Amino acid sequence: MRILHHWPLDPWSRQVRLALAEKKLDFETEYQRFWDAPDDLLALNPTGLPPVLVEETEKGRTALCESRAILEYLEETHPEPPLLPGGSADRAEARRLAAWFDVKFSAEVNAYLLHEKLEKRVQSLGAPDMEAIRIGRDALRWHLDYMCGLLDQRDGLAGPRYTLADLVAAAHLSCVDYLGDVPWDDFPAAKAWYQRIKCRPAFRAILADRLPGCPPVDGYQDLDF
Amino acid sequence: MRILHHWPLDPWSRQVRLALAEKKLDFETEYQRFWDAPDDLLALNPTGLPPVLVEETEKGRTALCESRAILEYLEETHPEPPLLPGGSADRAEARRLAAWFDVKFSAEVNAYLLHEKLEKRVQSLGAPDMEAIRIGRDALRWHLDYMCGLLDQRDGLAGPRYTLADLVAAAHLSCVDYLGDVPWDDFPAAKAWYQRIKCRPAFRAILADRLPGCPPVDGYQDLDF
Repeated sequence: MRILHHWPLDPWSRQVRLALAEKKLDFETEYQRFWDAPDDLLALNPTGLPPVLVEETEKGRTALCESRAILEYLEETHPEPPLLPGGSADRAEARRLAAWFDVKFSAEVNAYLLHEKLEKRVQSLGAPDMEAIRIGRDALRWHLDYMCGLLDQRDGLAGPRYTLADLVAAAHLSCVDYLGDVPWDDFPAAKAWYQRIKCRPAFRAILADRLPGCPPVDGYQDLDF
Repeated sequence: MRILHHWPLDPWSRQVRLALAEKKLDFETEYQRFWDAPDDLLALNPTGLPPVLVEETEKGRTALCESRAILEYLEETHPEPPLLPGGSADRAEARRLAAWFDVKFSAEVNAYLLHEKLEKRVQSLGAPDMEAIRIGRDALRWHLDYMCGLLDQRDGLAGPRYTLADLVAAAHLSCVDYLGDVPWDDFPAAKAWYQRIKCRPAFRAILADRLPGCPPVDGYQDLDF
């Protein structure tokens, strides 16, 4: 049995859901309001953050924490279909871009947009700060421009095939897209890339997410947007 | 030829120096004042941050960015001596702890102590904020306590052997130690762990670091401190 402790609009939880679905691995989910510091989540992960993947086998129970550690674990234990390219330099490029979105995109875009528009709402932290939202939207345009530069040369962010880089980027961007903040039409190469990703069967559950009291914008789930 | 673009007191640069030394790989270094946004560094890494490892072989030139991507690359291309354990669950634990220090320790300790006491000085950003230093020092005690909890059960942070977890933790802690901010005597298990790490030949170059105009505190380089 495999249980993923997650929050649906947490980009790191989404990465693990996507990887499990790409690799066609069955799992159950446990919804975690992590900002309430639930005891069961803290017992599994001392940071108190999702995602945590609990695997129970005959050999015992393993709790895996931190999205990148979980993704590497899944790649090692279930190599097909691969989410990392074959060559070491190509793998480094996919991991570089995964870090780009986990660190830079997250700090410059989601720390503003997700925090102001979503986290403040569900965690009752007060009204959104419009100046912070403007900063996040400006940074998002810069990131989309960077993505278009990569996608002019290749179909995936890190190379010709879908890799961890695309999965991690899509996990972060899909949360902003839930809020309707991505100016896709101004960035055609990024839009075409996201259309291809939305069509992947592994992405269906992400597009079906509906947060109670905070529905997605129109078009979030549409394959043709 | 192999060139590491680094800044000596950057914890992520230190991780790559340590991994290269553990694996006994020769390299030259290029000192990067990354806050001045040097053109050569920006051309190699669009984030403008060290470390960047440039490898030149007969097949061409590869620029590797982001410490975790570089460490995984080195582990794949030069597996001996290994910095990750053999089993996938054990590898996940080492990677979880590496993420702990790269994300949580960095945000809760080094973002205060290194920033206030070192980065502000070398980047001429004004006087240190004593309240921020107090917050960083309090968080550091909490992290040392967590480390002692792990080290009560095992010699390395992630298991019986030295792994990526120890290397990443030591890279971050050694920067705070350069400033003399680690209350080692209050945390004997962490102190004994750091003593073992200081004795590793791969750590010698780290202990020899001397930043112009900002020397380390007494005891930084001593194996018996």
